[in-house]
Amino acid sequence: MHPDRLFPADPGTRAIARRLYNSVRALPIISPHGHTDPRWFAEDAPFSDPVSLLLTPDHYVVRMLYSQGLSLEELGVPPQAVPAAAAGRPPLEPRAIWRKLAAHYYLFRGTPTRLWLDWVLSAVFETEAPLTAANADRTFDRIAERLSQPAFRPRALFERFGIEVLATTESPLDDLAHHAAIRASGWKGRVITAYRPDPVVDPETPGFAAQLARLAELTSEDTATWGGYLAAHRKRRAFFAQMGATSTDHGHPTARTADLSAREAESLFERVLRAAGTGAVAAADAEAFRAQMLTEMARMSLDDGLVLQIHPGSWRNHNASLHARFGPNIGGDIPTPTDYVGALRPLLNRFGNERALTIIVFTLDESAYSRELAPLAGHYPALKLGPAWWFHDSPEGLMRFREQTTETAGFYNTVGFNDDTRAFFSIPARHDVARRVDCAYLARLVAEHRLPEDEAGEVARALAYALPKQAYKL
Amino acid sequence: MHPDRLFPADPGTRAIARRLYNSVRALPIISPHGHTDPRWFAEDAPFSDPVSLLLTPDHYVVRMLYSQGLSLEELGVPPQAVPAAAAGRPPLEPRAIWRKLAAHYYLFRGTPTRLWLDWVLSAVFETEAPLTAANADRTFDRIAERLSQPAFRPRALFERFGIEVLATTESPLDDLAHHAAIRASGWKGRVITAYRPDPVVDPETPGFAAQLARLAELTSEDTATWGGYLAAHRKRRAFFAQMGATSTDHGHPTARTADLSAREAESLFERVLRAAGTGAVAAADAEAFRAQMLTEMARMSLDDGLVLQIHPGSWRNHNASLHARFGPNIGGDIPTPTDYVGALRPLLNRFGNERALTIIVFTLDESAYSRELAPLAGHYPALKLGPAWWFHDSPEGLMRFREQTTETAGFYNTVGFNDDTRAFFSIPARHDVARRVDCAYLARLVAEHRLPEDEAGEVARALAYALPKQAYKL
Amino acid sequence: MHPDRLFPADPGTRAIARRLYNSVRALPIISPHGHTDPRWFAEDAPFSDPVSLLLTPDHYVVRMLYSQGLSLEELGVPPQAVPAAAAGRPPLEPRAIWRKLAAHYYLFRGTPTRLWLDWVLSAVFETEAPLTAANADRTFDRIAERLSQPAFRPRALFERFGIEVLATTESPLDDLAHHAAIRASGWKGRVITAYRPDPVVDPETPGFAAQLARLAELTSEDTATWGGYLAAHRKRRAFFAQMGATSTDHGHPTARTADLSAREAESLFERVLRAAGTGAVAAADAEAFRAQMLTEMARMSLDDGLVLQIHPGSWRNHNASLHARFGPNIGGDIPTPTDYVGALRPLLNRFGNERALTIIVFTLDESAYSRELAPLAGHYPALKLGPAWWFHDSPEGLMRFREQTTETAGFYNTVGFNDDTRAFFSIPARHDVARRVDCAYLARLVAEHRLPEDEAGEVARALAYALPKQAYKL
Repeated sequence: MHPDRLFPADPGTRAIARRLYNSVRALPIISPHGHTDPRWFAEDAPFSDPVSLLLTPDHYVVRMLYSQGLSLEELGVPPQAVPAAAAGRPPLEPRAIWRKLAAHYYLFRGTPTRLWLDWVLSAVFETEAPLTAANADRTFDRIAERLSQPAFRPRALFERFGIEVLATTESPLDDLAHHAAIRASGWKGRVITAYRPDPVVDPETPGFAAQLARLAELTSEDTATWGGYLAAHRKRRAFFAQMGATSTDHGHPTARTADLSAREAESLFERVLRAAGTGAVAAADAEAFRAQMLTEMARMSLDDGLVLQIHPGSWRNHNASLHARFGPNIGGDIPTPTDYVGALRPLLNRFGNERALTIIVFTLDESAYSRELAPLAGHYPALKLGPAWWFHDSPEGLMRFREQTTETAGFYNTVGFNDDTRAFFSIPARHDVARRVDCAYLARLVAEHRLPEDEAGEVARALAYALPKQAYKL
Repeated sequence: MHPDRLFPADPGTRAIARRLYNSVRALPIISPHGHTDPRWFAEDAPFSDPVSLLLTPDHYVVRMLYSQGLSLEELGVPPQAVPAAAAGRPPLEPRAIWRKLAAHYYLFRGTPTRLWLDWVLSAVFETEAPLTAANADRTFDRIAERLSQPAFRPRALFERFGIEVLATTESPLDDLAHHAAIRASGWKGRVITAYRPDPVVDPETPGFAAQLARLAELTSEDTATWGGYLAAHRKRRAFFAQMGATSTDHGHPTARTADLSAREAESLFERVLRAAGTGAVAAADAEAFRAQMLTEMARMSLDDGLVLQIHPGSWRNHNASLHARFGPNIGGDIPTPTDYVGALRPLLNRFGNERALTIIVFTLDESAYSRELAPLAGHYPALKLGPAWWFHDSPEGLMRFREQTTETAGFYNTVGFNDDTRAFFSIPARHDVARRVDCAYLARLVAEHRLPEDEAGEVARALAYALPKQAYKL
Repeated sequence: MHPDRLFPADPGTRAIARRLYNSVRALPIISPHGHTDPRWFAEDAPFSDPVSLLLTPDHYVVRMLYSQGLSLEELGVPPQAVPAAAAGRPPLEPRAIWRKLAAHYYLFRGTPTRLWLDWVLSAVFETEAPLTAANADRTFDRIAERLSQPAFRPRALFERFGIEVLATTESPLDDLAHHAAIRASGWKGRVITAYRPDPVVDPETPGFAAQLARLAELTSEDTATWGGYLAAHRKRRAFFAQMGATSTDHGHPTARTADLSAREAESLFERVLRAAGTGAVAAADAEAFRAQMLTEMARMSLDDGLVLQIHPGSWRNHNASLHARFGPNIGGDIPTPTDYVGALRPLLNRFGNERALTIIVFTLDESAYSRELAPLAGHYPALKLGPAWWFHDSPEGLMRFREQTTETAGFYNTVGFNDDTRAFFSIPARHDVARRVDCAYLARLVAEHRLPEDEAGEVARALAYALPKQAYKL
């Protein structure tokens, strides 16, 4: 990995970028939103093998290989209903899958996956990068050997990666046993949870009614009444906060919000609940309920201080047959055009002027950056812009985020970087890419005499460290 | 301010940009669309103080500070209904507000406001830039002292700024007394008006019915009939043209146009008028009426030669509670996705092939540049593209405008720069930024051997001076 | 023409771009989609004159001149109903029209038309570029003189241009006589057809019913029944494949697809057919029928192997009066916002996981690149991204395509360049521009240490040659 990677090619600008980057390179990692498994840090067991660590759980990798004609089965992803064993086929050897990845590694040219994986191979495992058919066996063995060493256990890596705080994401129905175990263990690593109530907020989630019943059990509240349902949320939020949570997160199909009267909300809840019992909530009711719940969550945030994150606009499980066979999260989630100006208005008109509230909004629709999101965040005190998300947390995507939001919203209505990943090993690489791109953007401002270098340095450090800590109250 | 600011960092390209810029730097300023106060030039009184000059009227400044938790009251913006005095509070000292701006000046890093304000401080007031907590009092005193000098009166600055013509924007109900006074004064500065009939065209404007009545008084036409209403417009347009106007301007929520038959239009007008009397015009009727009026305005333009400007796509007063307390124009205007292809078709099919007509269309939705606006302007003889507007008249925004429109519409279907501002002191800075960015874009074309430098120079001079004069018939 | 044109200005990056480009510069041209006239290659007659060769058929040229006030008549484009002779006017001399082009050549500054025409003038005709009023007569004479030489006949140029394969586009009603003549002639140039069934698929095409009748005659199938209609398509596809076709192409107003049951499809077909007889197909039925036919075409592609191209999103003949007088393709086609995620889902859910199928999708709505198209192509095995299209096959447009699709879809889910042109003489220039821009993009990746130069070279060669051959099965 070249030390100047991702810096602008012009030598003068590159020198500025290098200086800015050197002042943020070693700052601790703040990871306020992501999807790592807390069990890793609770149990601190060795990771099993290169494939189940680096390939299978990384939907960026799986989707690209699938798009080029490899089947999920040959990548070691078994159909849900028919595990390999039950189907009478022997499970694939990780080594064989690794060789497939190596043979198709060229597909990742020009993608962030290539940057992240090269970094994991070279910086974490000190093996050869890029992966090739020729070195596939050698790199496999090397990684496998390393994984058996104590220095490659989850907690050791957490410390080696310089992570100051890492948030995972859990359902209100989760008992947070792993988080409790981490706290009880005496280990100093700060792993916290975040409250993601989609399974008990979105009436279109499979098993919605059963999940409300489970929520009732956990909270001793009557979740069959609107009041009891809200009280149950309050209790679980308090429990999550106790386990370190400083934020909630909401992954809705749209950014729609609503501000119904208490009576209207109650009646909507009752209609949704009745329909959920029979498995057929009207689409408009489901959408209205999700919309109202964002406003309810904001109201609770004003009380308990949790930061509210909205991740809208993904058409989940677009590929119906693949979803039916393999379940969710296998690459069939596709961004859609997303309205914010009309959609967020009920919430913003209710709570957008509250200085004590923080709402962080994300987008998969880059056309909204300059048109809607920067103007909204550059006005409403409660609203901040989440960083470039998902398909867009790439060098070009991160750069477009800055180019298209800064002039209207400034830097200080943004909240630093989120890695948002399951791929634990790539976390430092992802933060490093974000820091490099931010420094590249700032270096251009400096080179074009739009910002003095000392001020650019202050901004770089704020983006890398201070802003995420402050925005997420960490 | 560095002399090479906003030029590309690559030394070869920068040298080209510098040469191009040197050939346009000192050209007179053509400001064919903006919102300065004609009273300034009529009365030529000194400006009062730094805050009421540079902060309060600049919604870019106010919105950013508000977004970061400062209240409008502490910025010296009083609630409409309750002036500070009436509320029993002493008005804030301008100096105290100036200190607040200084303490938060870092928020503007990376924004065009920073560039404009730095320029006003250093080039106009010859004081320190950037503003800091440390120099806040010194800069305040320096500016206040300067404002008392004759050289800082409106007319002197107009001349010092090299403004050849400056258009303001007035309602048909305005008596244009200030413009008359300017003309009567013998002063040579060319300050002209523009006809902005929204208050008597948009049935959703508060007080619409009363405004039509006032229009009737001013014109001795019966504005309760469709024919009289149109005649009243014709008379006021003629009066505005006499006061120098060469254009009309229309700030509609959408770009929708209509081409109804005379009978349909009349019947729509009657329905709107009846409903306006009772305060409840149907939204669809209001939209249809605005749509039809754009076509009526184009028809009148064919007679009187006024250039028709359309500024669509802003959701005005998005922040309801702020609007209720402080009125319009305090930062709560948010861009929305805007259709042009379907919306403009009735107008373009009626008058788009007229070579004698000029329609200038603007957008807040940058996704329309390459998809809709450049293809439309690259085809219809009557249609020209207005420059990057509002949130987008920034270095990155101006560059995106060129990058996304030039290849399809060319340079000659665009009309140069508009400053579109209330902030008189920043006008030279805004035009300078636009000239620098255009030269930076052209320099890249030259450096990449896409255009010879002599031709690029011709283009640069056309964009800075000849095209706006020609497009706006100045 | 400067040898480094379109390469990045930074000297280090430019050197990389130059090396990459030198490895692809001389590769044969693969032109898998375009609109040249097969008659040229069948008859190999000399082209007539500079204007009918370079100006009249190039809608990029005509639309720009028209947008700036030149009439179509003075550009030598006669109204359809009233040929110049019949109207009693003498046809315009080509030389007079050429002088008009020369006098307005400055309008094309910054557009790809300028690059292409300069190249044709200097590289093909070895005359002066740019065209000016001063050299108009000289260049006209020079070109006219050259056109009379054997080296400037269609086949000689085809060979001189290094074209390996050139696809034209024909209706199922075409007898492909020119293609048959080319094959019978013994000439080795590979000119193939492509199956564009819009006239017999889109019920809103003028003459739809008559065209179905003609299709029946050609195939001896009863196109008044759903089964016979589909069988007729199968027969014509087979005939086209015999004449070299490897693809079909579909130019629909939207990307909508449908997956109806056989019974529903049949009933829709019958409804459409009945209404077409009376000239009034319901808009919703027309849209549904086009949507269903894309899925039917994909089903046939699984049998006969033809690649399916979808070119959606153009509002054809937006300028109604111009269309009425001059017919289609005179510049009044305007892009519209285009949905892909919902629109393509029925087709993708039916056939998107088929590895044996290739669907190539294009867009005129660049906002869909990163939001919809790259995520879809980066997932579905059957789906590939067509290159930047129409208004966007320009330097900036081609660059945005790479910048906005590569990180999610990679390079290998794209299919190289299409020239998509009627302007035969510009084909090498267009491919050259695409190769230069791809190399410029790759050079930046190399300079920023995102991709090693040897791998970038492999990608450059794939984009220029291997990928189009493979994707289009050539």
